[in-house]
Amino acid sequence: MLKLYDDPDSGNGYKARLLLALLGQPYDLVEVNAIQGETRREAFLTKNPNGRIPVLELEDGTFLPESNAILFYLAEETAYLPADSLGRARALQWMFFEQYSHEPYVAVLRFWARHTDKTRENEAQWAEREKRGYDALGVMERTLTEQHWLLGGTPSIADISLYAYTHVADQGGLDLSRFPALRAWIDRFPDLEGYVPFSGRLRATDDRKA
Amino acid sequence: MLKLYDDPDSGNGYKARLLLALLGQPYDLVEVNAIQGETRREAFLTKNPNGRIPVLELEDGTFLPESNAILFYLAEETAYLPADSLGRARALQWMFFEQYSHEPYVAVLRFWARHTDKTRENEAQWAEREKRGYDALGVMERTLTEQHWLLGGTPSIADISLYAYTHVADQGGLDLSRFPALRAWIDRFPDLEGYVPFSGRLRATDDRKA
Repeated sequence: MLKLYDDPDSGNGYKARLLLALLGQPYDLVEVNAIQGETRREAFLTKNPNGRIPVLELEDGTFLPESNAILFYLAEETAYLPADSLGRARALQWMFFEQYSHEPYVAVLRFWARHTDKTRENEAQWAEREKRGYDALGVMERTLTEQHWLLGGTPSIADISLYAYTHVADQGGLDLSRFPALRAWIDRFPDLEGYVPFSGRLRATDDRKA
Repeated sequence: MLKLYDDPDSGNGYKARLLLALLGQPYDLVEVNAIQGETRREAFLTKNPNGRIPVLELEDGTFLPESNAILFYLAEETAYLPADSLGRARALQWMFFEQYSHEPYVAVLRFWARHTDKTRENEAQWAEREKRGYDALGVMERTLTEQHWLLGGTPSIADISLYAYTHVADQGGLDLSRFPALRAWIDRFPDLEGYVPFSGRLRATDDRKA
């Protein structure tokens, strides 16, 4: 049985949980509390020297870190990853965009909103991240104005990767009403067979910010 | 003929240039000056809505952005990308690590050192990036202490991706002498058949900081 080391509050972890659910692939979930530093302890570093969740443990005991590498591995030879070389590269293009140009702004703003306070000292940093977050959402909007999914007519791991933090971007203070095509794209996900919502699976309520 | 839109000073671009050279793959190079804003103009945004180089133009006119997606595309069915599913995922694991946990620190410090000045106001930001840069180099050191290349016994696109900014990390003020295995790894590259050095290809001297 596959095993997923994950924190329920992590959108990076949700990417893997969502794809596993869409594929109908059973797995054991091992909850790791990243906020409390569990991922930086030696026991975890042997699984991922970079000290981050999610990590997928394969049936033979091999550990695979990095959410988007996990998506790619799980999606090979399924409908969620194109079979042709250019299609795979396109999926990767969007996933590298996600890690470099999207997650550091859209996800980090959400993290800050949940775990820190905006002060006069860090206000400029929040504003800078908001600008870049909107830039990233604008890039997605441009593509989604022309097609239903990021690679064209069917959903792929590119969509799953970007959905994780985009659909909760408002939790970081980003206003999605500026992006009608993006909102229509978000609304398509719950209709996918096997869809599971973010976090609901592991914890009924969020007790961090309470 | 393949066409690469690139800035000679970009390590992300060098990844593609190095792999193309190692594969003996001819291509036309179109120089784009990212510093002067060329990548943010509409003519370029039709090639990459995210406004960044490098972009690979395929023979049929298709544009493929994102350095690591380009590496993956070019390396399929060559010795630089494993043929098995787990091997491909491992290569991707390192490339996502590169974009999220390495490039924003190792490459950004180099960029700052070349294009901005360290002031009392931004000193804390430099120190934070240095800490995280060293963390990333430490993750690589841990793996390279046990094997010659990031995926094991032979070089792959994971190595090429991480080599680009690691081998010039000292230009951003990072001290590589702390990482003996990493330095030995860097020294292995020039022996690869077809190797080309960073930037030498396009511009004999760096005139930006002069």
